[in-house]
Amino acid sequence: MQYPEIPEFDSKSAGQAQERQNTLTKPTGSLGRLEALSIQLAGISAKSRPTFPRKAVIVMAGDHGVTEEGISAYPSEVTKEMVVNFLNGGAAINVLARQARARVIVVDMGVAADFEQAEGLLNHKIAKGTQNMRRGPAMDRQQAERSVQAGVEVVEAEIAKGLDILAIGEMGIGNTTPSSAITAVYTGLPVRQITGRGTGLDDSGFFHKVEVIEQSIAFNHPDHADALDVLSKVGGFEIGGLAGLILGAAAHRIPVLLDGFISGAAALLAVEMEPRVKPFLIASHLSVEAGHRAILERLGLKPLLELDLRLGEGTGAALAFHLVDASVNTLNEMATFSEAGVSGKE
Amino acid sequence: MQYPEIPEFDSKSAGQAQERQNTLTKPTGSLGRLEALSIQLAGISAKSRPTFPRKAVIVMAGDHGVTEEGISAYPSEVTKEMVVNFLNGGAAINVLARQARARVIVVDMGVAADFEQAEGLLNHKIAKGTQNMRRGPAMDRQQAERSVQAGVEVVEAEIAKGLDILAIGEMGIGNTTPSSAITAVYTGLPVRQITGRGTGLDDSGFFHKVEVIEQSIAFNHPDHADALDVLSKVGGFEIGGLAGLILGAAAHRIPVLLDGFISGAAALLAVEMEPRVKPFLIASHLSVEAGHRAILERLGLKPLLELDLRLGEGTGAALAFHLVDASVNTLNEMATFSEAGVSGKE
Repeated sequence: MQYPEIPEFDSKSAGQAQERQNTLTKPTGSLGRLEALSIQLAGISAKSRPTFPRKAVIVMAGDHGVTEEGISAYPSEVTKEMVVNFLNGGAAINVLARQARARVIVVDMGVAADFEQAEGLLNHKIAKGTQNMRRGPAMDRQQAERSVQAGVEVVEAEIAKGLDILAIGEMGIGNTTPSSAITAVYTGLPVRQITGRGTGLDDSGFFHKVEVIEQSIAFNHPDHADALDVLSKVGGFEIGGLAGLILGAAAHRIPVLLDGFISGAAALLAVEMEPRVKPFLIASHLSVEAGHRAILERLGLKPLLELDLRLGEGTGAALAFHLVDASVNTLNEMATFSEAGVSGKE
Repeated sequence: MQYPEIPEFDSKSAGQAQERQNTLTKPTGSLGRLEALSIQLAGISAKSRPTFPRKAVIVMAGDHGVTEEGISAYPSEVTKEMVVNFLNGGAAINVLARQARARVIVVDMGVAADFEQAEGLLNHKIAKGTQNMRRGPAMDRQQAERSVQAGVEVVEAEIAKGLDILAIGEMGIGNTTPSSAITAVYTGLPVRQITGRGTGLDDSGFFHKVEVIEQSIAFNHPDHADALDVLSKVGGFEIGGLAGLILGAAAHRIPVLLDGFISGAAALLAVEMEPRVKPFLIASHLSVEAGHRAILERLGLKPLLELDLRLGEGTGAALAFHLVDASVNTLNEMATFSEAGVSGKE
């Protein structure tokens, strides 16, 4: 498939932001990672003094055939139930997005249920859940392509409405299992090392989950040189959708706030599809989920927040909107040494 | 002196917040430190579902006689110049407070200059800077008491105007030097280990600063069992003021967001003056400044943010308002499992 064309990170705007930072009334570098973030955002947006007022969180939902192996503490029905909760504004992501004045867009990428009344839900349902990857590919290659394409289309529609920055999130009971499989494929680390307890497995549940992931990889032989092969064999519809969001946003110079483990796995795929997306990615937080650190290391990203979150939905990403605003507000609004008549270093 | 009476942390409200967290539509504990923070805030405020709309940052400013020893990269005049910058709204703390919709109160605790036009500046000037602590006590005991009392009065006046949560910050060229001295007194750690480069010392400046701090402690013999003795001998007027803010806020069940190293040193003093303030303290961030980690360990606090900040002014504390709101907004606004009709764990 044809991926969107990704522009270059704009070093000139980044350099201008860096220069301005050095003139502001504070010791050089004393705002630490906020300064670095403002410079990255300038390079992403190709604006030396960017602002990001129009914010969105896009939440991709999908179900997973592998749940029939008993790898999650919650039943698959929760995916649909939580989608309804998102649409009604009652979930954590709704609360945090309201606080950030971000809109929430919920996409059915492949929930294993029909929605009767679901006003506001975007329907890109590829199938009612993936196949059980322990016994065969999670989806066929065409479905994998369609899931990525759907993500590109969803973000392009939001960009057409007006969008300056994107946070990505997901809901899908069982989706830490394909995310661990993807992470194992790309990091080469042992499955048990990059697998966590998801929403709350006990010890025996955890060991069983590790075994299921190992068997899924062994059975399907995903080709790590072919991201669509990996996605189709051990991925998920919402994970493909998230990869599409990343590609589509980067193509339009929209910074992407990654959330936790699942969006991290999607970022591994997106970077394989198009390595030029890398500088457009921002790691909002470090999740408790075991494999997330390995993903961020592979992507060369340092998380902004470390709050022991393991909820998903885009909650960590939505929390980081605030730091994005703080970084560009200080860049844009602080007085310079000469404007304020403040003495410099002796 | 008589310190304000500090109430008990309200375990009943904290317990009710904990119970509610467990009914909300998310895996138990999946919001990590936001959940813990909401529970702490419930216990501080004695409200099971608290909110903190009325926010303030109080910035205490003072100068330090020890700057004549050449322990800072910036000249003392910058204290006054930055106070003017605060009053004009051009400093980092102004930008971050605006973003948090917090008011900024600036207090002259002992700036070594007169202010002609300084509308909005609260005048509690105890003297035009402390004495040089390398050659004698930084201030006399009565001045130390007055500095703490001023802090209590300033916060009580703000509480009378309406205040739900307080961030504390400071400005004072040279004030990492007394803060290191206070930290050395209370942690017993070697001065070189808990001393940093302040706003930007080079190697030889750093070694000189360590020596000045060691000599100040050796010369003055601060009595670590007597916080006012420590404050008077190796402290600062704005540091005493910050300790007063902490005591005054805790007395009225107002949570206190500490900023970095200097407000941490003030917290060490406040906890010595009245150990019951401890549960009312929230560590907003971990500063780059070397001694800050040791302070937080001694106080038993874990920072919310780690963004390599080393600016002071209350900037880290102001950034954490957002996490306070996120923690109580999710507590208050999320749907419960039964309200949303979401299935529980299998």
